[in-house]
Amino acid sequence: MRIRLVIEYNGAGYCGWQYQPNSRTIQGEIENALKGVTGADIRLHGSGRTDAGVHAYAQNAHFDTEEDIPADKWTYALNRLLPPDIRVMQSEAVPDSFHARFDAIRKTYIYRMYVSEQPSALRANTHLHLTMKPDIMLMKEAADNFIGTHDFRAFISEGVKVINTVRTVISIEIFEERDEITISVTGNAFLYNQVRIMAAQLLRAGYGIIKPADIAEIIKSRCRRRAREILSAKGLYLYKVCY
Amino acid sequence: MRIRLVIEYNGAGYCGWQYQPNSRTIQGEIENALKGVTGADIRLHGSGRTDAGVHAYAQNAHFDTEEDIPADKWTYALNRLLPPDIRVMQSEAVPDSFHARFDAIRKTYIYRMYVSEQPSALRANTHLHLTMKPDIMLMKEAADNFIGTHDFRAFISEGVKVINTVRTVISIEIFEERDEITISVTGNAFLYNQVRIMAAQLLRAGYGIIKPADIAEIIKSRCRRRAREILSAKGLYLYKVCY
Repeated sequence: MRIRLVIEYNGAGYCGWQYQPNSRTIQGEIENALKGVTGADIRLHGSGRTDAGVHAYAQNAHFDTEEDIPADKWTYALNRLLPPDIRVMQSEAVPDSFHARFDAIRKTYIYRMYVSEQPSALRANTHLHLTMKPDIMLMKEAADNFIGTHDFRAFISEGVKVINTVRTVISIEIFEERDEITISVTGNAFLYNQVRIMAAQLLRAGYGIIKPADIAEIIKSRCRRRAREILSAKGLYLYKVCY
Repeated sequence: MRIRLVIEYNGAGYCGWQYQPNSRTIQGEIENALKGVTGADIRLHGSGRTDAGVHAYAQNAHFDTEEDIPADKWTYALNRLLPPDIRVMQSEAVPDSFHARFDAIRKTYIYRMYVSEQPSALRANTHLHLTMKPDIMLMKEAADNFIGTHDFRAFISEGVKVINTVRTVISIEIFEERDEITISVTGNAFLYNQVRIMAAQLLRAGYGIIKPADIAEIIKSRCRRRAREILSAKGLYLYKVCY
């Protein structure tokens, strides 16, 4: 039986999603809980990795089991053993052909940031701190250049080897509420660190360091050195995975 | 020179505001930072204690110093030494007659809670988790009974000795946004645990366990056993102190 999980987590205390032998990771904690429930070593397949410090509202993952537990009860069984900053919000049976990673057709990440002179204690791990307000209209104009199918080679971490760097950005929304700014990016899939590098360029446009139209040129350059900046993982959330 | 500080903190990692010799407390951390800046033992006077786990958007405190640092620069000097979950948001010179506790004329606490079947990982330390939605109209009706000057003896933790248990509740607002409910309580001052005990009764009214009018009777009884329940510190914030 194949079970799909929807998982919320606060990534602040973890070395990212992916299992690592001597580090606390989200996947590692859930695999521990799966072992606690079943006694067996079960491999959990996530929709993709998230970096150290990145949060999730709705990461998706699947695993296979022969355990005789009703599909919707895995939520309770696992939450009893998981730390409070990792919660299974939903569990359901899926066909054996379902794959959390390969079947994902669309993902949304959001970046949460706030503007204030002093950094906020209550938002230290959950939002990015900006001391100056960027121009939201300029950011929106810059964001339009990302929409569509492009070779995003300029927006990948240096040293990472991927053959196909073509990805489709479906939409970018930027909205303000009180002292907070949220950037929401939806795409078919993302390269390693792509969202963090894209968001850094949006902020540069918002601060007038680059022109909105420069984004198109940076994409076209396919040159990582043109987009060196990367935003901190703080404030980044995997928001939704669509199948 | 007397300096007033406005302090934001996430209380999750602390044993409350008040200094204790072998525990991490907010006051203790700030006094450590004051010692780090000045080399001297300086006593910090807060507007009042907050319990273990309680957060603050704007706790107020004052201290005296002969240090030659411009009043508004204490913010930077202290934040350099403080952990990221405690931040001084503002510092200013005040007259020698100012006292953070005795001069406070009004305080606002807010309780943040959310309704969902499964507890949220991202809100584990910041909100109270409710599995069922209470009736907000019943809660508002119940809250009206608290407004005014009453003897709140029924709403104080058992075993606490205070002579004067008369306090004035100026306003209570209850509002909903998405899956969240916020209760905001403003009063001239509060007894130990008073807000947490009052909020527990508001929820009981919202769930139909008591009638809104029963609140008036519980107040009148002046009997602690009539209001036994107390809500968890999670989700409680000292929101504002007025002078």
